[in-house]
Amino acid sequence: MMIRQLFDLETSTYTYLVADPVAGVAALIDPVREQVDRDLQLLRELGLTLTHVLETHVHADHVTAAGTLREKTGATTYASGAGAPCVDVHLRHGDTVQVGAITITARATPGHTDDSMSFSVPGAVFTGDALLIRGCGRTDFQNGNAAQLYESITQVLFALPDDTLVYPGHDYRGRLVSTIGEERRFNPRLAGKSREEFVAIMDQLGLPPPKYIDIAVPANRGCGVTPTA
Amino acid sequence: MMIRQLFDLETSTYTYLVADPVAGVAALIDPVREQVDRDLQLLRELGLTLTHVLETHVHADHVTAAGTLREKTGATTYASGAGAPCVDVHLRHGDTVQVGAITITARATPGHTDDSMSFSVPGAVFTGDALLIRGCGRTDFQNGNAAQLYESITQVLFALPDDTLVYPGHDYRGRLVSTIGEERRFNPRLAGKSREEFVAIMDQLGLPPPKYIDIAVPANRGCGVTPTA
Repeated sequence: MMIRQLFDLETSTYTYLVADPVAGVAALIDPVREQVDRDLQLLRELGLTLTHVLETHVHADHVTAAGTLREKTGATTYASGAGAPCVDVHLRHGDTVQVGAITITARATPGHTDDSMSFSVPGAVFTGDALLIRGCGRTDFQNGNAAQLYESITQVLFALPDDTLVYPGHDYRGRLVSTIGEERRFNPRLAGKSREEFVAIMDQLGLPPPKYIDIAVPANRGCGVTPTA
Repeated sequence: MMIRQLFDLETSTYTYLVADPVAGVAALIDPVREQVDRDLQLLRELGLTLTHVLETHVHADHVTAAGTLREKTGATTYASGAGAPCVDVHLRHGDTVQVGAITITARATPGHTDDSMSFSVPGAVFTGDALLIRGCGRTDFQNGNAAQLYESITQVLFALPDDTLVYPGHDYRGRLVSTIGEERRFNPRLAGKSREEFVAIMDQLGLPPPKYIDIAVPANRGCGVTPTA
């Protein structure tokens, strides 16, 4: 299994290439529209065919490349059933996606948004904006729910082995990867915190609205190519 | 062996933590002064003692954290003999540095600057600004020399196995890692190019001077704490 992490500097978004180099097939998780050329070039150079595009949720801070990549490569697009209506396949908790010899397992982790899903492979989990490095996604829009996020992180993600690599959807301080064990022990919003304490922390964040939410959410419900209401 | 890649968003600089978690010791390669708190927190949380700080060269685009880290942790600082006079140990091509069970080998790769060194561990090489992803460091200041850089890349770095991970000093397009095989085949300045063609490419880049060179180079010759002439 090959995992390549990619970064969009404008929005601090991580995209992940997960590939079976022997079978010559690849999935992209959370690709960014402005990076389509970069990502297609990398796939070409690595001799990989893009077969799957997975979205962890309907993003509010950048526009997905899912629709463009589907048009250009024929890849199948995936998201939660509560997610973008435009995707080809809506996943439920526990569903698996097969990329060559790699089994990707969908794990519903709502709370940042109601459609948030994490995707796990042996030894690693792609957490979108549910669990970030020493942080987590905000819960004050898109049907976010702090109590639900607490359950998603502590019951679903923290149930994974401690040495599981955590690949988040963003980081704003230049950290690229963490582990479940690190986040269980050192995430300041979660380590030793009850659900009530977590909810209180999230309720007091007082963050400004995301700059691009009014553009990004409708665009992403249309896979970045067909804005929908 | 644990490798953690870290990113400074302001200067697009990569810092690398290379650790032996069993022995509880770590090296930092090319730490950035503005990220000292982040990096010390990570070391603390991972239960690692910083024993070594390695500089790939005297940087022109950011100020090193080497001196500050030495003061705060007692770590020993390393660079090329042609590099910053402030470091504790000047390395020559082929010298090794032992971090717990990990042997780091110094490989002189001058050309971007006359003091440029790459550092290799089994399966990976930290190339500083000698070899970048699908590019290379510029050669028009600090005794840079394009012909010399061509030799460093093609004779020293490309002599490593094709599957060796290439961890560069920077990337400006959100790419984090490459391999020797990829760069041999797809680096547009080097793949299929003669030394003369490479020198011609480098001579025609016409880049503006780095914004911080007049501050960064003297600061870095003093390990980021004592500016020197």
